[in-house]
Amino acid sequence: MRIALLGGTGDIGEGLALRWAFHSNHDIVIGSRDPEKARSKANEYEAKIEDRGVDTKITGFENGMAADRADIIVLAVPAYHIADTIEAVEGSLHEGDILITPATGMKRDDEGFHYHKPGAGSVTKIAVEAAPEGIPVVGAFHNLAAGRLTDLDAELGIDTLVIGDDESAKSTVESLAEDIDGLRALDAGGIANAAEIEAVTPLLINVAMNNDGLHDLGVRFD
Amino acid sequence: MRIALLGGTGDIGEGLALRWAFHSNHDIVIGSRDPEKARSKANEYEAKIEDRGVDTKITGFENGMAADRADIIVLAVPAYHIADTIEAVEGSLHEGDILITPATGMKRDDEGFHYHKPGAGSVTKIAVEAAPEGIPVVGAFHNLAAGRLTDLDAELGIDTLVIGDDESAKSTVESLAEDIDGLRALDAGGIANAAEIEAVTPLLINVAMNNDGLHDLGVRFD
Repeated sequence: MRIALLGGTGDIGEGLALRWAFHSNHDIVIGSRDPEKARSKANEYEAKIEDRGVDTKITGFENGMAADRADIIVLAVPAYHIADTIEAVEGSLHEGDILITPATGMKRDDEGFHYHKPGAGSVTKIAVEAAPEGIPVVGAFHNLAAGRLTDLDAELGIDTLVIGDDESAKSTVESLAEDIDGLRALDAGGIANAAEIEAVTPLLINVAMNNDGLHDLGVRFD
Repeated sequence: MRIALLGGTGDIGEGLALRWAFHSNHDIVIGSRDPEKARSKANEYEAKIEDRGVDTKITGFENGMAADRADIIVLAVPAYHIADTIEAVEGSLHEGDILITPATGMKRDDEGFHYHKPGAGSVTKIAVEAAPEGIPVVGAFHNLAAGRLTDLDAELGIDTLVIGDDESAKSTVESLAEDIDGLRALDAGGIANAAEIEAVTPLLINVAMNNDGLHDLGVRFD
């Protein structure tokens, strides 16, 4: 499939782009508000994969053009840019496309990181509310450490929880997630269940901060 | 050490009692509002452990008398009974005692289970506010499936997150947790970090409900 990573020049976008390019045959399109930056990062990622002897083609475009070229559109942007990113590419979304949101909201105080639950109920729900009629939104990849994804020598062996109200779209995303070696996709139900998943991200950071030797943590349900 | 499980006739109390009695030499005291019920459950748990060829002594008392006999007091009661249980045993708490709270708050709707965050910020914080001056509260054992603990044939291989503002009390609880085979204790920081831990419990139920073959789930940070 063709996967566009909007905000794909950021760390989680880079991690997902590298993993899919390395482990699957999907076409990867990097999106950015700045097309020059998108092209330059796309070339950089492509070179990293080819250095490992895997032939791949990663392209870079302005977000709207990237979305237009893809069936799967990953909103790899901070939580506060989810709604405006969807609005900016709305005209490039077509029937059959799927939006994926991995974002979560966090705030930090002296004790550690805390989940910052938005008024909508979750960041995933913000994406649902901003998405055009008929374009399903699936939440996934919330609890993955970007640094670990980006390091292709790092083994995963962790889970990602997938939520959505469109079962067919959810099942497509589960399958895309499992195209990444070492990643297991688990169904966590509908969009209403998003907040508890998003809250795991600050928890992972707190656990890593308080235990020597643990960093870039993921989670495994067992 | 002497560990009292207040509300120890319930399922999480039974699970912790059986695991500690089976895997360690701690003295286990079952507490209940009803001393008859406490004694009867204590005998039942003791018989289960002795059936496995392990010599143990589990006693049962009314909650206040159970707390009086122990150094470690586990509040194995539902979230809405945390404060009144602490108040009921307050006169039986002594300097050096540690209160442990494993409770979380949940509500259910058509989609699944959701974390019900109390006004205090977390259920753990409710315990802190109800505890007498000088008695430290440690949050632990929030995300353990009672059914899995109770089945001594079930392997654990999972983590429990420990939080508290008294480092020495937290370290004692981490060590008690690791006395249970297959349980790893991880430090998740101070009481302010409790909500994200408590929210994992409804998440585990949602994941189990939506994936065939998964039940009594625990979590492993990796």
